[in-house]
Amino acid sequence: MSGSLTVIGLGPGDARWITPAASAALEAATDLVGYGPYLDRAPEREGQRKHASDNRVEVERARFALDLAAEGRRVAVVSGGDPGVFAMAAAVFEALDGGGPQWRDIAITVEPGITAMLAAASRIGAPLGGDFCALSLSDNLKPWDIIEKRLKAALSADFVIALYNPISKARPWQLGAALALAAEAHPPETPVIFARAVGRPGETVTVASVRDAATVAADMSTLVIIGASTTRLIPREGGAPYVYTPRFYGVRP
Amino acid sequence: MSGSLTVIGLGPGDARWITPAASAALEAATDLVGYGPYLDRAPEREGQRKHASDNRVEVERARFALDLAAEGRRVAVVSGGDPGVFAMAAAVFEALDGGGPQWRDIAITVEPGITAMLAAASRIGAPLGGDFCALSLSDNLKPWDIIEKRLKAALSADFVIALYNPISKARPWQLGAALALAAEAHPPETPVIFARAVGRPGETVTVASVRDAATVAADMSTLVIIGASTTRLIPREGGAPYVYTPRFYGVRP
Repeated sequence: MSGSLTVIGLGPGDARWITPAASAALEAATDLVGYGPYLDRAPEREGQRKHASDNRVEVERARFALDLAAEGRRVAVVSGGDPGVFAMAAAVFEALDGGGPQWRDIAITVEPGITAMLAAASRIGAPLGGDFCALSLSDNLKPWDIIEKRLKAALSADFVIALYNPISKARPWQLGAALALAAEAHPPETPVIFARAVGRPGETVTVASVRDAATVAADMSTLVIIGASTTRLIPREGGAPYVYTPRFYGVRP
Repeated sequence: MSGSLTVIGLGPGDARWITPAASAALEAATDLVGYGPYLDRAPEREGQRKHASDNRVEVERARFALDLAAEGRRVAVVSGGDPGVFAMAAAVFEALDGGGPQWRDIAITVEPGITAMLAAASRIGAPLGGDFCALSLSDNLKPWDIIEKRLKAALSADFVIALYNPISKARPWQLGAALALAAEAHPPETPVIFARAVGRPGETVTVASVRDAATVAADMSTLVIIGASTTRLIPREGGAPYVYTPRFYGVRP
């Protein structure tokens, strides 16, 4: 008898951003599978088992969760943000696609969540107000050539660009390279937003110009938004300016 | 004395996707401003005023909301989806930027929500599992030339593409033109997802190949996701296949 598997997005960290649907799916599960810090954000529930794993073994974790579900358990795979955006949902379907028939009868669902770029944008105004791209800067799973091609295409067409996984100890130079491409493509005053740990303790949101952006510190908890050439600032007393991208382009109606 | 203005995202329609933070912000408001069908989704609260407007007058609606806040009211501007993605947040900041000093002391915040592409993706698998773009096909606020340039750039760099506002009575041909560009750029079997009224009565999710996508009906309630060349199908008995985009590109690790 097959059980079920739900991939759940907890949003960026603030419990008030966990949807009621995600909370209900957490509550209904017999087994929670995920990266330890995400599991710590789920409320304790008697009889529910938590299976914590490292953050780097997504497909193995997905296979483990599918095996549990195939045994008849009601499994929740827990992700931060939205599970479909650079998180666990794709890993689950990759595992399913490469796996055997014993997994094909499992009822698999996905519960959406607030992804990091939406939370980051909400803290500073409306920088994603025009067309935008979301791009992972990690070259663990795709070659840098592809990332560079995508950055250049997005910059040339003047999309706003949200950069996930911008930097880590093992990937120290990629963010600088991306910001250098942006500085070549855009006017020097184009805003760049560094949103760190949004919705979690120590949240900071910094706005720089693309000319100076390389001097801003960033880490694995940072989401970077590179404005389009039309992205504008509104000064604000006692804090970072608002940043927004108008909906119109070229001609103000 | 200035009041406050919060731009709130209600998600795509299902009340279980409204975050607790958005619910609390709705509850705290003295005045709700927005398109009528969105206001209808807010629970009735004694003493709270609802100001419904047409869906086409975003900046006028934003100015009205800012004026109310300047009078000292606690105003909630209510959006579907996420307010920062092709919704009311950019309109509020456009109005603020073009407006007078009487609005500059208003405390403005944004409450994020589940945007349509995340909800649509969650229903079918993980089509946004790789890098992706979000593009409004409406040429009311930007020229078609820009839209076409962005589509071509996104297709050439093999981004997954989420199309908001794909079609309306006044814009009948743009979706067909976009799908024709996709069919030129991608293999004929590349999946295209049509997600209509996700989270609302009458929800349908259809998967076609880019070769046949032009024959699928779409309307203003449809969100279209054009897969990348790497986007894959997993057949499923008794329903649409799962659709996912692997996280890796070019080389499977």
